Amino acid sequence: MHFASDNWAGTHPKIAENLSRHASGFASAYGTSTLDKAVEQTFNEIFEREVAVFFVATGTAANSLAQASVAKPGGVTFAHREAHTIADEGGAPEYLTGGSRLHPVDGPLGRINVDNLRRAVAGYNNVRAGQPMAVSITQLTESGTLYEPGEIAAISTVCREYGLPLHMDGARFTNALVSLGCSPADMTWRQGVDILSFGGTKNGCWCAEALVFMDPAWAAAFPFIRQRAAQLFSKSRFIAAQFEAYFEGDLWLDMARQANSMARRMADHISASDNIRLAWEPRGNEIFAIMKLTTAARLREDGALFYDMNAPAYERQLVDEGETLTRLVTSFATSPEEIDRFGELIK
Amino acid sequence: MHFASDNWAGTHPKIAENLSRHASGFASAYGTSTLDKAVEQTFNEIFEREVAVFFVATGTAANSLAQASVAKPGGVTFAHREAHTIADEGGAPEYLTGGSRLHPVDGPLGRINVDNLRRAVAGYNNVRAGQPMAVSITQLTESGTLYEPGEIAAISTVCREYGLPLHMDGARFTNALVSLGCSPADMTWRQGVDILSFGGTKNGCWCAEALVFMDPAWAAAFPFIRQRAAQLFSKSRFIAAQFEAYFEGDLWLDMARQANSMARRMADHISASDNIRLAWEPRGNEIFAIMKLTTAARLREDGALFYDMNAPAYERQLVDEGETLTRLVTSFATSPEEIDRFGELIK
Amino acid sequence: MHFASDNWAGTHPKIAENLSRHASGFASAYGTSTLDKAVEQTFNEIFEREVAVFFVATGTAANSLAQASVAKPGGVTFAHREAHTIADEGGAPEYLTGGSRLHPVDGPLGRINVDNLRRAVAGYNNVRAGQPMAVSITQLTESGTLYEPGEIAAISTVCREYGLPLHMDGARFTNALVSLGCSPADMTWRQGVDILSFGGTKNGCWCAEALVFMDPAWAAAFPFIRQRAAQLFSKSRFIAAQFEAYFEGDLWLDMARQANSMARRMADHISASDNIRLAWEPRGNEIFAIMKLTTAARLREDGALFYDMNAPAYERQLVDEGETLTRLVTSFATSPEEIDRFGELIK
Amino acid sequence: MHFASDNWAGTHPKIAENLSRHASGFASAYGTSTLDKAVEQTFNEIFEREVAVFFVATGTAANSLAQASVAKPGGVTFAHREAHTIADEGGAPEYLTGGSRLHPVDGPLGRINVDNLRRAVAGYNNVRAGQPMAVSITQLTESGTLYEPGEIAAISTVCREYGLPLHMDGARFTNALVSLGCSPADMTWRQGVDILSFGGTKNGCWCAEALVFMDPAWAAAFPFIRQRAAQLFSKSRFIAAQFEAYFEGDLWLDMARQANSMARRMADHISASDNIRLAWEPRGNEIFAIMKLTTAARLREDGALFYDMNAPAYERQLVDEGETLTRLVTSFATSPEEIDRFGELIK
Repeated sequence: MHFASDNWAGTHPKIAENLSRHASGFASAYGTSTLDKAVEQTFNEIFEREVAVFFVATGTAANSLAQASVAKPGGVTFAHREAHTIADEGGAPEYLTGGSRLHPVDGPLGRINVDNLRRAVAGYNNVRAGQPMAVSITQLTESGTLYEPGEIAAISTVCREYGLPLHMDGARFTNALVSLGCSPADMTWRQGVDILSFGGTKNGCWCAEALVFMDPAWAAAFPFIRQRAAQLFSKSRFIAAQFEAYFEGDLWLDMARQANSMARRMADHISASDNIRLAWEPRGNEIFAIMKLTTAARLREDGALFYDMNAPAYERQLVDEGETLTRLVTSFATSPEEIDRFGELIK
Repeated sequence: MHFASDNWAGTHPKIAENLSRHASGFASAYGTSTLDKAVEQTFNEIFEREVAVFFVATGTAANSLAQASVAKPGGVTFAHREAHTIADEGGAPEYLTGGSRLHPVDGPLGRINVDNLRRAVAGYNNVRAGQPMAVSITQLTESGTLYEPGEIAAISTVCREYGLPLHMDGARFTNALVSLGCSPADMTWRQGVDILSFGGTKNGCWCAEALVFMDPAWAAAFPFIRQRAAQLFSKSRFIAAQFEAYFEGDLWLDMARQANSMARRMADHISASDNIRLAWEPRGNEIFAIMKLTTAARLREDGALFYDMNAPAYERQLVDEGETLTRLVTSFATSPEEIDRFGELIK
Repeated sequence: MHFASDNWAGTHPKIAENLSRHASGFASAYGTSTLDKAVEQTFNEIFEREVAVFFVATGTAANSLAQASVAKPGGVTFAHREAHTIADEGGAPEYLTGGSRLHPVDGPLGRINVDNLRRAVAGYNNVRAGQPMAVSITQLTESGTLYEPGEIAAISTVCREYGLPLHMDGARFTNALVSLGCSPADMTWRQGVDILSFGGTKNGCWCAEALVFMDPAWAAAFPFIRQRAAQLFSKSRFIAAQFEAYFEGDLWLDMARQANSMARRMADHISASDNIRLAWEPRGNEIFAIMKLTTAARLREDGALFYDMNAPAYERQLVDEGETLTRLVTSFATSPEEIDRFGELIK
Repeated sequence: MHFASDNWAGTHPKIAENLSRHASGFASAYGTSTLDKAVEQTFNEIFEREVAVFFVATGTAANSLAQASVAKPGGVTFAHREAHTIADEGGAPEYLTGGSRLHPVDGPLGRINVDNLRRAVAGYNNVRAGQPMAVSITQLTESGTLYEPGEIAAISTVCREYGLPLHMDGARFTNALVSLGCSPADMTWRQGVDILSFGGTKNGCWCAEALVFMDPAWAAAFPFIRQRAAQLFSKSRFIAAQFEAYFEGDLWLDMARQANSMARRMADHISASDNIRLAWEPRGNEIFAIMKLTTAARLREDGALFYDMNAPAYERQLVDEGETLTRLVTSFATSPEEIDRFGELIK
C-alpha cells in the first residue's frame, strides 16, 4: 500500500516502451532534434497558443528557474507558506535567483488568501524592504486542494495591479486539470498565469518536467538561464520521448484520472470509517486524513506507507491531542485492490 | 555517418530494457531506494574504495558542482583553455560557485602544461588577485588525447603544493580508461584525483552522470549543494537503473571499446588517405583531422556529419590556409559500415 | 526636533578634527597602515581578548558579510521578524551569502523568544528544508529594547545545541552597553556572541562600521570575503581615524550616554503627558510612543520629525483605532532644548 | 618619496574642512539630503546632460555594480588583461554580477586593441559559450596611458555592433581629463561611454566614488542593486561633502594637474638619467620605468616607495634580464622637492 508519494511509482509501460523505441538512431543534441521540436508543437496544441517550452531536470529546477527568469535585485516571490518552493526546495529558488526572497503568504488549505497576498506585496515598497518580483501558486496545492479558475483570476488581478508575473507550480497539473474538467488554457493563461512548471514525473514519467512560458517573448533569455543552471540535457530527446508517449492518446489524462479516482475511492473508505476522518475534501490525488497516532502506527505495521504532516496554523485546530495529520497519495500505478485493502484496515 | 558527437547517439538496448524492467514497482524517492544504494555499492567496487556518489542531471552540473563543493571567496579554478568547463558550460561553473573564476591554462593538444599551471596558480597570491581553489583536467581531453597516469600525478603534485583539490571531468572517462587499459583507481585517486565527474551519457546512457568524491568526508555538505542546485531527481532510480545495466557484464567497457575501435578504424582510413590527415594521434573516440574546406563540404554533401573546430594557439600552426580542423566522434553505436563508407569517400 | 533617526545627525567635532589631523601625510592603503593597526589593537583592549576586526562601509554590509562568513548551502539565518537584517537590508544578506534564507522569529518587543527560536531552528532538519546556519540578534533592538546578558546567554545555548554561530547586530551597540552598564566582553563573547557588527555611524561617526570576530580563527577567509564584496576601502585609515577619535577619552560612551539620557528625558515628558504614551519602556535612545494620528500630525506641523512604525503582531494590540505607533530617536547631537520643546508640545 | 600609489595620500585640506563644516546639523539619510541632491546637480553640469549618480564605497564596487546593472545570464565582460576589474578586484565583479565572466583582451600599453576586442566578442555566440554583456575600459589606464577620444569612439563602435554597453573605469578619470584637456562629456558619452566609475579617492578625497549612468533610464533598477550590495551609506552626505569641496573652484582639476605635473617632472629626471629609463611615455600621474634590480633596491634603501610590476606580454620584451619594471605614482600631495630628491638619486 504505497501512499507515501506519487514519485515512489515508476513509469507507465508505454513511456518505457517509447524510450526503447527511440534507443537506436541518432539525433541532434541539446533539444534541437525533430522529436524535441515535435513535442514543443504538442505543447502549443495543448495550450491553444504558441508557448515556449523548456525541459529541465526537476520540478525544483522548473520552479526556481521560473523565478530566475523574472528576477529583480532585492526581489521577493510570494507563495503559500506550505508551497513546495518555500518548504521543500532546499534554498534552490533563493540560490538560483541570485538571492531573492520567498515571502510566505497564509491561507486555509494550502491556498493563498487574496487579502493576505495583497497586504504582503504592499509591504515591499521601498529600496530597504525590497521589491515584489513574482507570485507563485501550486495547482494541485500541497494540501491536495485546488484553485477554481476564477480564484486563479483573482490572484492574477493582484499580480496585474503590481505588475507581477504569475507562476503556477504544476507538479500535479494534470490531477488538477482532470479534477476541474477544464482545458489547460482555461486553467492557466486565460486566468492570467504567465509561467507554468509543467510536471510529468509525478504523473507517470521517469523524469519529465517542462517550464512553459505562455508568452514566448518572455523566454528570450531563458536558453542562457537554463544552460547557466546546468539544466540543458544533451540527449534531451529522452525527455521528449517520455512526453511524446505521455500525450499520445491522452495517456496523461488517463493516468491522472486513475490517480484521482483511486483517491476518491480511498476518501469513500475513510468517510465510512470511525477510526479515521478526512481533514478536508480531496480534489485530486492527495488525501489528508486525521487519525489516532496508534491507528497510524497499526496501519504502518500492516504495510501502509504514508507521511505525517506538520499541520500549519489553520489546520492545526483540526487535529486533536493524540492524533496525527497524515497525507496519502495515489498515482497512476495505484490499484483498487490496494485501496480496498486499506479500506479493510480502517474499518 | 554520424560523427558530430557521441551525444547524438541514443542509448544501448540493454539500458532501455533495464528502464522497462524497473518501470513497475514502487521505491522510495530522492536517491534512497535499494537500487540507488546498490549502484552506489558498485561504484565502491569499481573504484576499490569507499567513495561518495551523487547523480546529477548533466555533465555541466557535475563539473560545476564539483567546483561549488570546494568553492572559496575570490576563488579560481584552473583548467585547460579548451576545457568543457571553460568553453562550453555557459557560465554554469561561475554561477553555481557564486562567482568564482576559471583561469585558462595553455598546453598542447588539450592537455595542461604543468609549468604553465604552476605559474598561473602562483599569480593568485593575495586578496586583490583572488585565491586558487581547484584544478580541473579532462580525461579523455576535449582534443581526444589523454593524460597518462604519471602525467595526472604530475599535475596532482602542483595541487598538493598549493593545497588544491584535483577534479577530473570524465565525460569520456571510459574511453580513456579502456584506451589506457588501467583500472579506474589507477586513473584517479591513486594519481591524486579528488573529485570525478563520471559520465555515462556520452557512452551509451540516456542521462547518467555522477559526481564521485574519492574521499566521502569531502561530500558532507554535498547533499545540500545538490538540492540547492535543483539537481536531485525524485525518481532517482531511473538514473540508477541505467547505471545498473551500464556496469552489468562490463557493458560500459564494451561500449567504450567499440567506440574507440571505430575511431581507430577511421584513423587508419585517414592515414591511408591523401585528402585528409590526422591532426594528431587519437587516444579514444575523438578524431581530429585536417582537410581542405572543399573536402569537408563534399563529405557533408555525402552525408557525413562532423564539426569544424577553432584551433587554439598550438594547433593553429597545423592548419594551412584553405583547410579546416575537424572533429569526428564515434560512439558505442557507430558501425564498421559507417566508418568504411567514410573511408571510401576520403580515398 | 530631529527624532527621525540617529543617522540624520552629522559627526562629532572631535571626529571631524581627527580626520583633518590625518588629512596630510602618506600611509599604506587597504587597512595596513599604522593607524589601522593601532585601532585594531584598541578593539582588542575593549573586548579584553584578541579579536579580528574588519572595517566595512555600512551596517548592512557588516550584517550580511557576517552571515556570508558562516554561509552553508541551503543555509538559514534566524533573526527577529523586525530585525534590520530582515526588514531593511533590501535583500543584501540573501544576495551576499549566495542565496541563504532569513527566517523570522517572533517575540515581544523586538526580542527573539527562545522557544520560538528553538522551534524554528528544529524545522530545518533535512536537505529539502535546508539547514540552520546562524542566529542573529540586535542589541539595542529595533524596538529600543535590549537583551540582558543572561538573555543573550539563553539564546546562545540554543545556538550551541545546534552548532550555530551567534551574531549580534550592534548598530546601536554602545547605547545598549551604557544602558546595561556592563563591559563589551560581558555583552558579547562571555554570553556566547561569536560575531559582532560594531556600529559607530549611528553614534556620532560619519561612516565607521566594523565586523568583529571574537575568535580570530573564524576570520581566516574574511579578507577574501570582504574584498569580493567590494568593501575594502583603499584609504581605510579614514575609518580608522574616526574610530581613533571615537574611542579616545571614552567619547563613544559619552555620546551614547548623551543619546540615552535625552531619550530618558523625552520618556519622562511623555509619561507626564495625557496626549501621548510610551508603548513600552525605552532602554536606549529609541522611544516608541503611541499617540492619536491627529496629535502626530500636529507635532509634525510644529517641526518634530519622527516615523510611524508598522506595529508587528504582539505590539498591534497596544495601538487603538485612530492612533499611531511612532518611533523617536535621539543621538549624541540631541539637545535638552529640543527635548524640552517637544515636551512642551505634548503637554 | 611616496610613489607607491595615489591612494597612500590622505585628503586635501579643503575636503577635510568641508567635512568639518557639515559635521553639525541634521539631514535626511540614504542620499536624500539637500547636499546629496546639490552634488547630483553638479554632476549634471559637469557632464552637460542629466545623468544618474550613485555614491558607492569603493572603486571596485563602482566597477562591479556597473557590470551588475547590465548583467545577463552567461554574460561576459571584456576588459584589458591588465584592467583593475580583472586583476585587482578579488572576484568582486564575478560575485556581484551573480557569476558573469571577465574575458581579458590584449593590447599594448594597457589599452584594448580593437581587433582583439572584436574577435573576443565574436567568440561568445551561443548558449554554451555565453553571451557578451559589456566592455570596460580604464581611463587613465593601469599602465598610465590613455585613450584619445577617437580611440574610445572606435571601441564604442564595436559595442554598438554587438549591442553592448561601454563602461569606463575612471579611478584616475581626472588625471586623464586634464591630460587630454577635453571636457568630461567629450571623454565619455560623446564617444559612446554609457556608464562611468567616477573616482575621487585617488585624486584627493578620503572616499568618494560615484557610478554615473549617462542615460538615467539605465539606472531604474540601480537603487535596488546598490542597496542589495550593501553600498548605500546612511550618512551619504559625508560623501557628498567631499564631492562638494572637490568640485568647488575646480579643486579636482587642480589636484589632477598637480599630480600630472609632478609625474612629468619625474619623467624628465628619468629621461636625463643613465640608470633608469621610461618604459613608455606617461600620460597622467603614473610612470612606468625600467631599472636594474640593484638600482631599485638602492632607491628603496634611500627611502623611495614604489612597486615592481609584472610586465604583460607586449611589455615583457622591454625589460632585460636583471631589470625590473617599476611603477611610480604621483598625487595631489606630491611635492616638487620629493621629485627632485628622487631625481638626484637616479643621476
